[in-house]
Amino acid sequence: MSDAPGEAAPPALDERASYAHFARHSLRFADLDALGHVNNLATAAIFESVRVSFLAEAGMPVSAPKRGFVIARMTVDYLRELHFPGEVEVGTRVLRIGRSSITIGQGLFSNGECIATGTAVCVRIDRASGRAIALDAPLRARIAALSES
Amino acid sequence: MSDAPGEAAPPALDERASYAHFARHSLRFADLDALGHVNNLATAAIFESVRVSFLAEAGMPVSAPKRGFVIARMTVDYLRELHFPGEVEVGTRVLRIGRSSITIGQGLFSNGECIATGTAVCVRIDRASGRAIALDAPLRARIAALSES
Amino acid sequence: MSDAPGEAAPPALDERASYAHFARHSLRFADLDALGHVNNLATAAIFESVRVSFLAEAGMPVSAPKRGFVIARMTVDYLRELHFPGEVEVGTRVLRIGRSSITIGQGLFSNGECIATGTAVCVRIDRASGRAIALDAPLRARIAALSES
Amino acid sequence: MSDAPGEAAPPALDERASYAHFARHSLRFADLDALGHVNNLATAAIFESVRVSFLAEAGMPVSAPKRGFVIARMTVDYLRELHFPGEVEVGTRVLRIGRSSITIGQGLFSNGECIATGTAVCVRIDRASGRAIALDAPLRARIAALSES
Repeated sequence: MSDAPGEAAPPALDERASYAHFARHSLRFADLDALGHVNNLATAAIFESVRVSFLAEAGMPVSAPKRGFVIARMTVDYLRELHFPGEVEVGTRVLRIGRSSITIGQGLFSNGECIATGTAVCVRIDRASGRAIALDAPLRARIAALSES
Repeated sequence: MSDAPGEAAPPALDERASYAHFARHSLRFADLDALGHVNNLATAAIFESVRVSFLAEAGMPVSAPKRGFVIARMTVDYLRELHFPGEVEVGTRVLRIGRSSITIGQGLFSNGECIATGTAVCVRIDRASGRAIALDAPLRARIAALSES
Repeated sequence: MSDAPGEAAPPALDERASYAHFARHSLRFADLDALGHVNNLATAAIFESVRVSFLAEAGMPVSAPKRGFVIARMTVDYLRELHFPGEVEVGTRVLRIGRSSITIGQGLFSNGECIATGTAVCVRIDRASGRAIALDAPLRARIAALSES
Repeated sequence: MSDAPGEAAPPALDERASYAHFARHSLRFADLDALGHVNNLATAAIFESVRVSFLAEAGMPVSAPKRGFVIARMTVDYLRELHFPGEVEVGTRVLRIGRSSITIGQGLFSNGECIATGTAVCVRIDRASGRAIALDAPLRARIAALSES
């Protein structure tokens, strides 16, 4: 699960103890692929949903009209098969804060077992110009609070 | 919401009181369309998931290898806009039992309001031949039980 | 395939000859369900995509900010199984013009065979109020042109 | 673009010249997110579809009943926004061959510009045991041919 230098080393994304923020999501029949397993894309869709809510809860709505976040990089590591029907639990945390980006780490759990882990680099942009903008002090404070919780 | 003669008239699919079977599902960020509303297809995907679970709970797994159900007709009526994030509640019931098909009716509710209703004609088929087969007595008994509950 | 009185009777939606407007779409692996068939929802997603383009080509963008279309009712009839990979062809036409709504009929074809047909009632609304608004004369003229082509 | 250490060096995944295998896919209205851009997941779904076809064309069907491939790791880098409607072109190549895995690299292009690049580590497994199995000589020969083309 190691990526670029600063992206992964630290917290074990496949352990529940690494997270303070959890959210539950339901699986859908359409998530199944031709082999009868929950498809990779469903995992990514659930990670995305929780990430968006996580940022919104911290006062950083992804789809704010003037300034928001776009995803620059996504990784998913698949550890186990997942089956329908059921609910999964997703742990989410901040992994790294850059000048204009936040790297988020996530783990998807079913019946206590980690099914997949993921990371996403979310870049703060100005919608009009499409350019990355620095995370300002209040945002940094909020993100720091998220990281500690 | 009126369809073919026998398909719809009776129970009001947009009223919670019409259902005894309920299931909850979570909305996803990817369900949103370009207008910021939960897309029609997400509604259909949630209806499908609950329908599959509903039939499986009654001992009729949709994807059984030898004999299962295929959908022959689907209708969805959209009554209100739905927003992310959140959970919805789906009521499901049997509307009609044919020689080889079951018509299922559903209502999707958010905060007590009906967002959409749907019907689905599910036909029992033999997988090898692809042909519709009559619902046998034990299945009819189970479906009748579902209809009464 | 008959619905409410004016909705369906006339053109056979499962015949290519009923359409003048065609569009091609590619199937995706994620469209497959647990039985290895292209899922019902993929059919609905492709119908939707073509419908949106059809209306946009006629100068009626679905997601225009002030006035646009919302879908009030969708039906899909499934006639045959569909497999990945491949491309499908969708025929689209106007079935009925109401005071504030257009009913669109569609057929999805693979290798010349009709896989599914669908209808959609699209209602013209004012975004601010959410209310249905009458189709004005220029729109009616454009829709009439679509219907004849 | 192999994983660990060298994750970016070799072939530039964002250049058309890096690929010999190309496939076209159509975008769908449901791919749009609340900001009106094609969502990250649509990109991943298209990469997956082409990857599955790429492996099948090389005689390695992903969903073969006894021995197939599962995805162990997926990465996507997003370079530009993508809009509906339209078609995209996907370039696909083998990046690395391991004992029991193949790493595939992809680029998604629209109007000649690279929108996103991706990698996927696909592991050969025995379905019954779920264990990774070594790529045998005939498979290695076929993959080598793919890599050269």
